[in-house]
Amino acid sequence: MKKLINAPENVVKEALAGMADAHSDLIRVHYDPDYIVRADAPVQGKVGVISGGGSGHEPMHGGFVGKGMLDAACPGAVFTSPVPDQMLAATRAVSGGKGVLHVVKNYTGDVMNFEMAAELAAAEGIEVASVVTNDDVAVKDSLYTAGRRGVGVTVLLEKIAGAAAEAGADLAEVKRIAEKVNAQGRSMGMALTSCTVPHAGKPTFELPDDEMEIGIGIHGEPGRTRTKLASATEIAEMLAGPILEDLPFQSGDTVLAFVNGMGGTPLIELYLMYNELHRILKGKGITIGRRLVGSYITSLEMAGCSFTLVKLDDELTRLWDAPVHTPALRWGM
Amino acid sequence: MKKLINAPENVVKEALAGMADAHSDLIRVHYDPDYIVRADAPVQGKVGVISGGGSGHEPMHGGFVGKGMLDAACPGAVFTSPVPDQMLAATRAVSGGKGVLHVVKNYTGDVMNFEMAAELAAAEGIEVASVVTNDDVAVKDSLYTAGRRGVGVTVLLEKIAGAAAEAGADLAEVKRIAEKVNAQGRSMGMALTSCTVPHAGKPTFELPDDEMEIGIGIHGEPGRTRTKLASATEIAEMLAGPILEDLPFQSGDTVLAFVNGMGGTPLIELYLMYNELHRILKGKGITIGRRLVGSYITSLEMAGCSFTLVKLDDELTRLWDAPVHTPALRWGM
Repeated sequence: MKKLINAPENVVKEALAGMADAHSDLIRVHYDPDYIVRADAPVQGKVGVISGGGSGHEPMHGGFVGKGMLDAACPGAVFTSPVPDQMLAATRAVSGGKGVLHVVKNYTGDVMNFEMAAELAAAEGIEVASVVTNDDVAVKDSLYTAGRRGVGVTVLLEKIAGAAAEAGADLAEVKRIAEKVNAQGRSMGMALTSCTVPHAGKPTFELPDDEMEIGIGIHGEPGRTRTKLASATEIAEMLAGPILEDLPFQSGDTVLAFVNGMGGTPLIELYLMYNELHRILKGKGITIGRRLVGSYITSLEMAGCSFTLVKLDDELTRLWDAPVHTPALRWGM
Repeated sequence: MKKLINAPENVVKEALAGMADAHSDLIRVHYDPDYIVRADAPVQGKVGVISGGGSGHEPMHGGFVGKGMLDAACPGAVFTSPVPDQMLAATRAVSGGKGVLHVVKNYTGDVMNFEMAAELAAAEGIEVASVVTNDDVAVKDSLYTAGRRGVGVTVLLEKIAGAAAEAGADLAEVKRIAEKVNAQGRSMGMALTSCTVPHAGKPTFELPDDEMEIGIGIHGEPGRTRTKLASATEIAEMLAGPILEDLPFQSGDTVLAFVNGMGGTPLIELYLMYNELHRILKGKGITIGRRLVGSYITSLEMAGCSFTLVKLDDELTRLWDAPVHTPALRWGM
């Protein structure tokens, strides 16, 4: 196992300590229970927006805590749901009197634990709403998931819903916008290589030198097909095709296009894949109104990429463009 | 070879096309000769700052073109110097009447070709100054280099000198500041894995499963030692030690600390390494005044990291903090 780590059991806490040191202007890290929270939390009179999930997907979610995006993030062990105690503590820490939105990716453990935390918070008088992302068109029902998995849309939703909360929207409105992003968004990913969970010490799955997995999950869950390596053009078609058919996206639509790296894929390849996606969408009469290219929802050092498309309207475009200042996403301030 | 590409000979042009599509608000890409240039170039009355080098180090340099950083970047083939024609065309394209600074990493081909371009530009009446970065303390004289290699300092220098140019400094002043960053900066890197140049089709070097290379160059040039895998704490000492001794950095200094990923290393490990560097510097009485954590000067999909430290004073801190808006670095606008 080739990693820049000390003991596998300390990876998450040591990385959190690094984040806390590097971004003390933006965030604080609370330990036991572990959560990352805006330095100025709770912001009185603002809906709190929190998320969380297993570690190993950095910068998601901790890198999205800051002004205009998340108020807090709960990191679990690598690829393991955080526990309700973390979510409850984070909910309390960001409660500014207008309620708290939980952004939950659709994995059985995350959904169950966030539900429990929401009940406990409600019992303390904190109003909680939840949105569950399930944008992965690759498979229905998978390892860890009933229904579709929550993947790339989560990143975009956290930005857009976070902007709504920052602008003063109430809880019902922030939830409505978050649900709209999820409803209008679809994703699909692929892997060239596996990744290795530190405490496992060996690759999550085996993938021969001449094969790739299309429709991979962000924890290495099986996808749709395992097939021979193909060109970037062919891979882009394999990812974009199912996304475009599913909603469906149509000629005349304007989209937010997100080309995401899985952690071990360099930026030169992501721009090359963006070029492929741009060509495909142009051919279908779909306009890329906004875009994000980079590694934002990763699977440790897995090589591969995912595409996410969200149908844009004026409301979502305005919220996407709103200022944001987090460790991983920053513009307008 | 597992990569998201089509034909190896088209990788650079296809990635450039993706960048052009994704960042048309900031940059334009010119082909044959290839260069990336600010959308509003030439900016009249401003010193132009350009750089360039082999591709495969993205986002360096093309991702640093935009307001407050580079005016243009010349990408060569992967790990191959761009040619003088590119540099000359880029120099012309950014010439706003106050001269042009060439930022050159110390590799024999880059230095020779930028010198030739500078002579050709001078013959056309464009005043050109050059700064050569040589911050890598790992080795003196290496594959492709006489003297020390130019690595991580280049990224920080381009930001700081770019800010000076944006603020209206003249050519001599921008050059002075650039030389100061190089003089006050030192770097060292390491690799857990090799990378594969697309047209080579096989790894640049072989590194057994239980070994790493300390002092690696950004093209996979040999470092100081090849040794058994070690902990993050030990690796951080192996990188920080030679950097701190070389200048030397001293108790009471304030530094800009840059923890860079080589392309295949995930962010969770970079934050863990930042935590180690923070601990080491604290122990030496050195304050991290500013920092950058991420993959900014990469070696395709190589796994590994590098540390760069630059001694800060008020002038450099102010220029680092100045607004920047490029594809890869953005703040304050």
